[in-house]
Amino acid sequence: MKKINVGIIGLGTIGTGVYKILKERKSKIKKLYNIDINIKKTCDISESRKKNLKIPSKDFTKDYRDITRDEDINIVVELIGGTTLAYSICKDAIKNGKHIVTANKALLASKNKELQKLSDQNKVNIGYEASVGGGIPIINSIKDSLLINRVTSFWGILNGTCNYILTLMSKGIDFSKALKMAQNEGFAEADPTLDINGKDTAHKVSVLSQTCFNINLDIEKIFTQGIERITSYDIDVANNLGYEIKLLGISRIINSKLDARVHPTLISKDNPLSNVKNEFNAILVNSDNLGPFMAYGYGAGMMPTASAIVSDIVRISDSYKIEYLQSELKIKLNKFEDIKSKFYLRISIKDEPGNLGKVTSILGKYKINIDKVIQNNEGSKSKIMPVILLTKSLELKMLNKAINVISRNKLIRGEPLIIPVEDLA
Amino acid sequence: MKKINVGIIGLGTIGTGVYKILKERKSKIKKLYNIDINIKKTCDISESRKKNLKIPSKDFTKDYRDITRDEDINIVVELIGGTTLAYSICKDAIKNGKHIVTANKALLASKNKELQKLSDQNKVNIGYEASVGGGIPIINSIKDSLLINRVTSFWGILNGTCNYILTLMSKGIDFSKALKMAQNEGFAEADPTLDINGKDTAHKVSVLSQTCFNINLDIEKIFTQGIERITSYDIDVANNLGYEIKLLGISRIINSKLDARVHPTLISKDNPLSNVKNEFNAILVNSDNLGPFMAYGYGAGMMPTASAIVSDIVRISDSYKIEYLQSELKIKLNKFEDIKSKFYLRISIKDEPGNLGKVTSILGKYKINIDKVIQNNEGSKSKIMPVILLTKSLELKMLNKAINVISRNKLIRGEPLIIPVEDLA
Repeated sequence: MKKINVGIIGLGTIGTGVYKILKERKSKIKKLYNIDINIKKTCDISESRKKNLKIPSKDFTKDYRDITRDEDINIVVELIGGTTLAYSICKDAIKNGKHIVTANKALLASKNKELQKLSDQNKVNIGYEASVGGGIPIINSIKDSLLINRVTSFWGILNGTCNYILTLMSKGIDFSKALKMAQNEGFAEADPTLDINGKDTAHKVSVLSQTCFNINLDIEKIFTQGIERITSYDIDVANNLGYEIKLLGISRIINSKLDARVHPTLISKDNPLSNVKNEFNAILVNSDNLGPFMAYGYGAGMMPTASAIVSDIVRISDSYKIEYLQSELKIKLNKFEDIKSKFYLRISIKDEPGNLGKVTSILGKYKINIDKVIQNNEGSKSKIMPVILLTKSLELKMLNKAINVISRNKLIRGEPLIIPVEDLA
Repeated sequence: MKKINVGIIGLGTIGTGVYKILKERKSKIKKLYNIDINIKKTCDISESRKKNLKIPSKDFTKDYRDITRDEDINIVVELIGGTTLAYSICKDAIKNGKHIVTANKALLASKNKELQKLSDQNKVNIGYEASVGGGIPIINSIKDSLLINRVTSFWGILNGTCNYILTLMSKGIDFSKALKMAQNEGFAEADPTLDINGKDTAHKVSVLSQTCFNINLDIEKIFTQGIERITSYDIDVANNLGYEIKLLGISRIINSKLDARVHPTLISKDNPLSNVKNEFNAILVNSDNLGPFMAYGYGAGMMPTASAIVSDIVRISDSYKIEYLQSELKIKLNKFEDIKSKFYLRISIKDEPGNLGKVTSILGKYKINIDKVIQNNEGSKSKIMPVILLTKSLELKMLNKAINVISRNKLIRGEPLIIPVEDLA
């Protein structure tokens, strides 16, 4: 029987879940996999968590080096989050020959190159199933599938907070109330900025792009737009046109360039991603042999995320092989303004005779074909009229040029809202 | 480097796909997994397939025993289908110490107990990822997840033919035309009986129940109802009530009994399964730590199914461990008439004054509460009027009793259509 010693650093929500599952499933893992997984030491800055879990004092420390430098420990589970101390912990553990299991998407997105190099040198694995999509076994499915399938693209609903808010908004609740409700339900942090502005999704796009395409993708280079400017009115109009609005993380290789981005997207109700509601996450991966594959489940939460961590511990314990020692793929990034797509365009036109005509004639000059125009100012006394235009497929830069001219002519107020309409595979 | 020799028996569509993928990905698997997978011999009754694939004569045979008894072969891929010769092949291979990889759900559903026993005795594995959900990696996801999660139930859209037909019918196309279109598109066999009547789905429910619950489930014991009696009218009414009609395979443990069944089901449009359209399959698995997890993709087709076969070959090559040597779980089966559910009931009432009143008063006597009554006989000259009743939750046997009385009183014509409405987790 193989004996594996694990050290857990960080006993917050996820750490507590990992501790519980490893204790509870110990005999089952022993029986089925012939591996004895033992929690040798845990580390946290607070003693209270030690007490809650009834961890004996000899198995607890406040100094992470008692774990990263323990000769008997094989796998270090890093669950403190952040990118500074967590980075030091991982480096120290890897240099001491320990495998890493982590849920830390920010660390992976920002330090992947360094960590990858270090882990290759030291012949250890980094398990990060829990960093994307909570308990959904997407990373390992992709890794296993990569052997026999070449991934061409992925689309993901990767942030439960945004998806929960958008679901509430589709029921007519406005953004700020929906955000409050999400916070009350525990689906949004007290400071939800990184969720709402799309940064959290961008981290996950970076991690998934590494997995799918072997590309180190700096999140600063991913075009990222959050859901702050989406209104219930937009969702309602989109609905009537046969679409749902979802915050998508997208990454795909087009004409030998990587097109990676995060933005609200109109997706057709025929697409399975459109029916992913509330706090759920889903990732749709296209690959050459398999075609589209979608995985759906809880993207966060104590037990789902903890079970992803434990599945990595078992996977590493079982195989010990070095996964995906590939030289990094060099690829150019596609510029966001180069994307070709249909667009949903919401502009606020000054309600004066002929203004809409002037707008559409400028669009016409830039060869922008409009599929639908929606305006509804019955009963409105406002001098500003929201107009929705649904374009045919075109390059974003052409649309931007036309909008610049429209703005310069003072036909519209404020910043137009532009949302790509994705005809997903 | 580990060297694995594979023998493929059956070079039809899937066998050809497996041959191609193994050739094409050989160097990648070598590089990433340090395993050299070699196709040592192939077997088919027809020489033409050998020619198509340009297989050298020395690597081809018409006698399967040249593969099952070849000392150098480690893994036998059985792809001839059926339950007689395929069973002999698998037995012979296992007795000779070979691992099996197969897509044969009928064989697994009918001979699982015998094959399991034999494979345990000979310490070999049986890989069957391809038998359910084509290329969707559901079996191995469940197996990996079972270590840390206890599955409580699954619901699956497991037959692409039925799903394709139901999707067309939801667009107003009638059953027989939809079936013909499915056949033209290659989504339905020339003889589609086993798809349409639910037997194919029942085979898959049996295989998945073995995986999830370690239960040998005789398909004759699974309540099975096909889609033959569903009309576009049913789908239309269900739609207006907020439901889609899907052929589901269901298995779950309730009150220590196994409730396994296959039937058309009304599922709420909020549920992700409701948006699984055309020829796609999806499986929603509930487990204690993960919560609901759904996997979606192509349930059939050459390359998706072949890639599931290859993933099993790699999995077995990589680990060689005996998976899930568990003593079988003994459990009673729930009777179908004991299920408690809301029901969609379509009856044909003779259009005479007071008949509908008589029907509902009989239902009332059996304490069957009706949520909605839908009838629409405007403009109809028929003396038979279809009436839809949507019940509140109740035991099916009470509904059956009431319907017997209604039939005896000659208030309705023909067999009523009863479809469970599932409030999925």
